[in-house]
Amino acid sequence: MNYRAIGRFIGQIILLEAFFMVPALAISLYDGHMKEVFSFLITISISLIIGLSLKRITKKDNRGFYAKEGLVCVGFSWISLSIIGALPFFISGSIPNYLDALFETVSGFTTTGASILSEVEPLDRGILYWRSFSHWLGGMGVLVFLLAISNVGEKNKGFTMHLMRAESPGPSVGKLVPKIRDTAMILYGIYIGLTVLNIIFLLFGGMPIFDAVCTGIGTAGTGGFGIKNDSIAGYSPYIQWVCTVFMLLFGVNFSCYYLFLLRQVKSVFRDEEFRFYWIMNIGAILLISFNIRPLYSSIWEALRHGAFQVATVVTTTGFATADFDAWPGLSKAIMLTLMIVGASAGSTGGGMKCARIILIAKSLFRNIRKTINPQRIEVVRVNKKAIDEKILDNTNAYLASYVLILIVSFIIISFDGFSITTNISAVIACLNNIGPGFEMVGPTSNYAAFSPISKLILIIDMLLGRLEIFPILILFSKSTWSK
Amino acid sequence: MNYRAIGRFIGQIILLEAFFMVPALAISLYDGHMKEVFSFLITISISLIIGLSLKRITKKDNRGFYAKEGLVCVGFSWISLSIIGALPFFISGSIPNYLDALFETVSGFTTTGASILSEVEPLDRGILYWRSFSHWLGGMGVLVFLLAISNVGEKNKGFTMHLMRAESPGPSVGKLVPKIRDTAMILYGIYIGLTVLNIIFLLFGGMPIFDAVCTGIGTAGTGGFGIKNDSIAGYSPYIQWVCTVFMLLFGVNFSCYYLFLLRQVKSVFRDEEFRFYWIMNIGAILLISFNIRPLYSSIWEALRHGAFQVATVVTTTGFATADFDAWPGLSKAIMLTLMIVGASAGSTGGGMKCARIILIAKSLFRNIRKTINPQRIEVVRVNKKAIDEKILDNTNAYLASYVLILIVSFIIISFDGFSITTNISAVIACLNNIGPGFEMVGPTSNYAAFSPISKLILIIDMLLGRLEIFPILILFSKSTWSK
Repeated sequence: MNYRAIGRFIGQIILLEAFFMVPALAISLYDGHMKEVFSFLITISISLIIGLSLKRITKKDNRGFYAKEGLVCVGFSWISLSIIGALPFFISGSIPNYLDALFETVSGFTTTGASILSEVEPLDRGILYWRSFSHWLGGMGVLVFLLAISNVGEKNKGFTMHLMRAESPGPSVGKLVPKIRDTAMILYGIYIGLTVLNIIFLLFGGMPIFDAVCTGIGTAGTGGFGIKNDSIAGYSPYIQWVCTVFMLLFGVNFSCYYLFLLRQVKSVFRDEEFRFYWIMNIGAILLISFNIRPLYSSIWEALRHGAFQVATVVTTTGFATADFDAWPGLSKAIMLTLMIVGASAGSTGGGMKCARIILIAKSLFRNIRKTINPQRIEVVRVNKKAIDEKILDNTNAYLASYVLILIVSFIIISFDGFSITTNISAVIACLNNIGPGFEMVGPTSNYAAFSPISKLILIIDMLLGRLEIFPILILFSKSTWSK
Repeated sequence: MNYRAIGRFIGQIILLEAFFMVPALAISLYDGHMKEVFSFLITISISLIIGLSLKRITKKDNRGFYAKEGLVCVGFSWISLSIIGALPFFISGSIPNYLDALFETVSGFTTTGASILSEVEPLDRGILYWRSFSHWLGGMGVLVFLLAISNVGEKNKGFTMHLMRAESPGPSVGKLVPKIRDTAMILYGIYIGLTVLNIIFLLFGGMPIFDAVCTGIGTAGTGGFGIKNDSIAGYSPYIQWVCTVFMLLFGVNFSCYYLFLLRQVKSVFRDEEFRFYWIMNIGAILLISFNIRPLYSSIWEALRHGAFQVATVVTTTGFATADFDAWPGLSKAIMLTLMIVGASAGSTGGGMKCARIILIAKSLFRNIRKTINPQRIEVVRVNKKAIDEKILDNTNAYLASYVLILIVSFIIISFDGFSITTNISAVIACLNNIGPGFEMVGPTSNYAAFSPISKLILIIDMLLGRLEIFPILILFSKSTWSK
């Protein structure tokens, strides 16, 4: 294990976090809330000390850097990021319990949006901004950001590829251009562009600038932390529609936008995941709107709430305009399924990812055909390209780990004694980085009532979900640490 | 496709079913219930006509018989068995709706034990016997029975092996002895022996002979149809303990009993699935008994109900002595997990099977180690034997199909508008051949309220569960029917 390279890298990540905390500090300073200013200053100082010492101690090490190091690096980066990111909440007293603060921060970085707070409006604006910003940074990935701005991996291409692969969501990571750094820059370019566009649209609807920025970055990361107690429900229908459209847009594979920019529109519309994503969403919106029609005064209102809730659940954002826990059984079943499927690979959304569902279904039908004709040799194709058997194996392993983690987490949090639906949906909502579940963790409720052990399990589930299991699971494996 | 061989085989299965209906006819005749006598006579006549004509029309065909034919044969056999087996319920008016009668029969043969009847005590004893006997026949498999008593496959070993593999539960079928027919005879020998032992123990507890026979055959098949409205709750604690112990015994891989008979006790206790099965059950019983202790007057009563309900759920029998839907969240979570895991491969119990869980977990950890060291070559071992990669692939494909079928069924039955817990647990209870689920399909309730479409979906789920997906799924595949 190349500890030095890992240490050096984590140092840089921590310094980056300190840098990103400065705007939050500025907002608190502007509002004159000295407790929050103090908490940000302390956290930034701690980050600088740790970050700089890690950078100094661990000089360059030219030993190899393999997939193992990449995974461990990503796992530790996210854990360090969360541990430090929780400090402002804790020190300022906004969240007096550190475990709760950690839950909130992990929920932020993993873009889950599950909260232990029942009221957010009393919080300082600097704290609220930091809470929402964690979504933005976690959405596209902090390591990808580092790859975009620094020349950290120019000399070691394996290094950057492993990092990118470990942090990017989906069964296989696509390099848009030969150089990883260029790919990372293109991704963040599109990300920043769409976020700014989103904020402009929100401002047009008359939203105050602070609200628009926080809502915009929360949407971009498909996170879900709101700055109002009633999330997005209190804003105008126009703003709700803007959020719906942008949530769905951030759930698209970003490589599609790159192809759009290159004017390869046809190949975007031929993309199987792109089609699957939109057909599933439009189908779900129509079915649900029809199903909830009696609950609302007009079909348009039903459509607005249906579309918003589908977008929030499928992209695993977690904003809310309506309490879908009160909807009929069919709508709830569709929502639960969308939660599990999730958004596209290579987007900021969570869940299993459409691409994985397509792979699992295709390899399943291939296996059935193989049972019928054992002699038959057949490859699985997506977008007419043959898929490597290794990726199929990994996808099946992913599904298996997913199910096992789900069951184990479910049993452990059941010790708290809440209902089956609460427990299952809490685990799914955290593992898929959604946020709200059903019943006790429904859209109008929060996670505060769980015991510390359950919260810890759910924290781990959120990290497992965002980093797609392996970078976290590897930290618990004996063979990672043996020589 | 070798249609003739399939037709011939199904003819024999139908004749066998007619033969097994004779005791039920005799009971109805003894009780002098002419409506039921008439219904059995009609059904037997229909079976004879269809069975004999199929046998005559389809003369011997010496073309090859492959895995495909084996799977199709098993799928069609079970469907024919169910369609004809439902007739006595329907004709006698015991269940006036044919779809309901079919649901009850499929539930019987697949050893699910899910019922659409709210009261069983008013039914004729011949009908009740036939209802319970379907469990016994379905438990070990009707095709295995045919293989044991006839020389149907002596000339074609591929034929019998494919049939046995398709009907026997578990990831891989173990031949106990070189000849399939001998293996089938040994399995049925053990099965009959244990069933008789079970009935004797029940008689010792003062159970009337009719009750003891029906309860005994229902336990043996791990089915769950009772002959009392309150299932086993009204019987003495002694009888409840007898049922508990025998349910658990019928959930053990029958090859273990064969090894016992050969006095290879050590190798039984070294068997990984055997250990997993007992450790899991004893752990679950202790945890649940402790958890439900406050609900009962003594720890012994809690232990009795805990053990009984664990046994009934893990072996997917479906008898009940207590309403576990009213138990605390932890106990319910454990029960739901046991439902999914199920009994051992090669037993009469349902579920995913312990052996599969072991395989999935082992192949998962192997894949994690492979991610860390991509160069590493490692095989998965169970009981120190290397497992063929094909079996691992099949097991992963099984899990994937299982999850997909679960989600699709869940969405379709959600159209009925019942709660999430009702719908999820109904699908799991049918797919795993358990019987009772939670809430509306809880232990004190039944499946009558579902719409015809939902009942049809659940019927298909029960068959998919019992035959482990592929023999039924293959009937819906285009490539099965193309030349």
